[in-house]
Amino acid sequence: MPKKKAQLSDENKIIQLLQQRYTSASRLLEKGIGDDAAVIHPEQSREYWLITTDMLLENIDFRLDWTTPQHIGSKSIAVNLSDLAAMGARPRFYTVALALPGKISEHWIIEFYDGLNKVGNDHGAQLIGGDLSRSDQGIVISITAIGESLKRKVVYRSGGKAGDYLYVTGVLGRSAAGLKLLQSGKKNTRSRNRREALDAHHTPDPRCGTGLWLAQSGFVNCMMDLSDGLSMDLPRMCAASGVGAQVRTGDIPVFPESSQWGCDPLELALYGGEDYELLFAVPKSKNSLFLKTYPKDFPSITNIGELTGEKGKVWLIGQNKMRERLQEKGFDHFHQR
Amino acid sequence: MPKKKAQLSDENKIIQLLQQRYTSASRLLEKGIGDDAAVIHPEQSREYWLITTDMLLENIDFRLDWTTPQHIGSKSIAVNLSDLAAMGARPRFYTVALALPGKISEHWIIEFYDGLNKVGNDHGAQLIGGDLSRSDQGIVISITAIGESLKRKVVYRSGGKAGDYLYVTGVLGRSAAGLKLLQSGKKNTRSRNRREALDAHHTPDPRCGTGLWLAQSGFVNCMMDLSDGLSMDLPRMCAASGVGAQVRTGDIPVFPESSQWGCDPLELALYGGEDYELLFAVPKSKNSLFLKTYPKDFPSITNIGELTGEKGKVWLIGQNKMRERLQEKGFDHFHQR
Repeated sequence: MPKKKAQLSDENKIIQLLQQRYTSASRLLEKGIGDDAAVIHPEQSREYWLITTDMLLENIDFRLDWTTPQHIGSKSIAVNLSDLAAMGARPRFYTVALALPGKISEHWIIEFYDGLNKVGNDHGAQLIGGDLSRSDQGIVISITAIGESLKRKVVYRSGGKAGDYLYVTGVLGRSAAGLKLLQSGKKNTRSRNRREALDAHHTPDPRCGTGLWLAQSGFVNCMMDLSDGLSMDLPRMCAASGVGAQVRTGDIPVFPESSQWGCDPLELALYGGEDYELLFAVPKSKNSLFLKTYPKDFPSITNIGELTGEKGKVWLIGQNKMRERLQEKGFDHFHQR
Repeated sequence: MPKKKAQLSDENKIIQLLQQRYTSASRLLEKGIGDDAAVIHPEQSREYWLITTDMLLENIDFRLDWTTPQHIGSKSIAVNLSDLAAMGARPRFYTVALALPGKISEHWIIEFYDGLNKVGNDHGAQLIGGDLSRSDQGIVISITAIGESLKRKVVYRSGGKAGDYLYVTGVLGRSAAGLKLLQSGKKNTRSRNRREALDAHHTPDPRCGTGLWLAQSGFVNCMMDLSDGLSMDLPRMCAASGVGAQVRTGDIPVFPESSQWGCDPLELALYGGEDYELLFAVPKSKNSLFLKTYPKDFPSITNIGELTGEKGKVWLIGQNKMRERLQEKGFDHFHQR
């Protein structure tokens, strides 16, 4: 459930309202509204089943002149699989509802589905159905991904405790650096750094294997994926866990190469979004064993701070040890209103 | 998976292509692309789980000036629950991905979800998650509904045999008659007939209880819901079952009152769509027992013809016994291109 779009504070408010208004217990439901995915427990099933939905709209989430149909397909499924990764689930199936303007060619459609199918296959998820509509506006893509737990071990946003060490996988702000290139008209480049940033933006790699390992390991108290940037997502995890956090800005794994094209790497890491890395918390007592056990060939992980007892407050600690409150802001990619 | 929108023949072609290109066996999957819902079999689960997705777009599927947010909500979930009804599944959960223009009020959003929740509750389905986006164009609603079988008895489109009697529930062409009223600017009326047509259009009642009973009864070889009109949907059932059909036009349960406002009731029944009634086939040998057993207080059912061995051919038999081929056509509700 990435929340990278505009009206972000409104959106949090609406979700809260839906949660209050429509949540009810059911023997078949482990977890409803309010996490990366819902968790169902089919009767007598060995495993939980997880469901997540994401919608992507032309000119809000992608632009046809900046990308290819394969990339749109692969990104559409990747953002959904990332939600399953964030709970530690194994991707299994997905459905695609697609609305297309009349001018879209059959070739475009096939390339789009090939992009979907490639990334789905890579992570074990199979297309099982959907809907096709005509759009008199832009392209709309809505995907629902379905995953299976392993031994019913899933990780929620809500298990974090004060004192837990806060980790992220990979590098933050790289996708946003790629977007900056696109915004300045540089969609083709031979530079390795620029290529890397563009790739991160076009074809994010959902951390399914890592999320599964983390959930199985038993070291992780809470987890989510970073879709809207640390500044938007970390407060959500804190709210769900009833804790606060402090983050050492100097320890955030930024993408320093983006300064070559005029970006502030720290700003992109905090506010850029669309990295689809994992954010998770490990109890201090398990930390050294966790670090010893974490597989060497997995994505890098970085301890960026810790959870605190100051409920709802997220602080940034600068290199001069100065504290400042983290501002919750994302940016709307195509319409700086 | 209603197919009521434009480019209908293209759409059948694309779905066929997806089916050929991306279908692969999985031990957890009973049925993938090509029916009203996909059917999953979680390991050791007592039941199958069914998944279906439908997208509704402003000015394609609904118009804000013709309807209320509650009606949009209730129709959005109803069309999905109808797909579950068509397989005989019990609705359990649903997710909602929603894209909204900035001008939509919080009040509108709450009324919309109240409409969803009312119909969901009526049929035992609970909201468990979703996505909220900004749209820079119209409203987009994409719902995924999840149902559970009872004793693993689900009915596919594909089990029909030559000689089976063809049945429909309820009345056909009533929703389209309501749409005609809206198109001619008559959204308020005191006439009972007109009210009934408008209600059928705004708040279709998915046949969940009937679908479940039919699947449990063991009398039904194949079933689907009528979302695009008999002329579009019956050929799909015939294609899936590898049979043909003949329909006695005089026996189709039309909505004759629509002639009062200039409609041709038969034409609306064949080509109008959005009735969300069930179409199903009963073997001749079981027919009399079926008719005796079918509950008296359930929606009316009507035998409208039979399946034949003439694969892919659907004939209409007029009251003068003349045969003519049924033309596959739907209509695009808001844009007669």
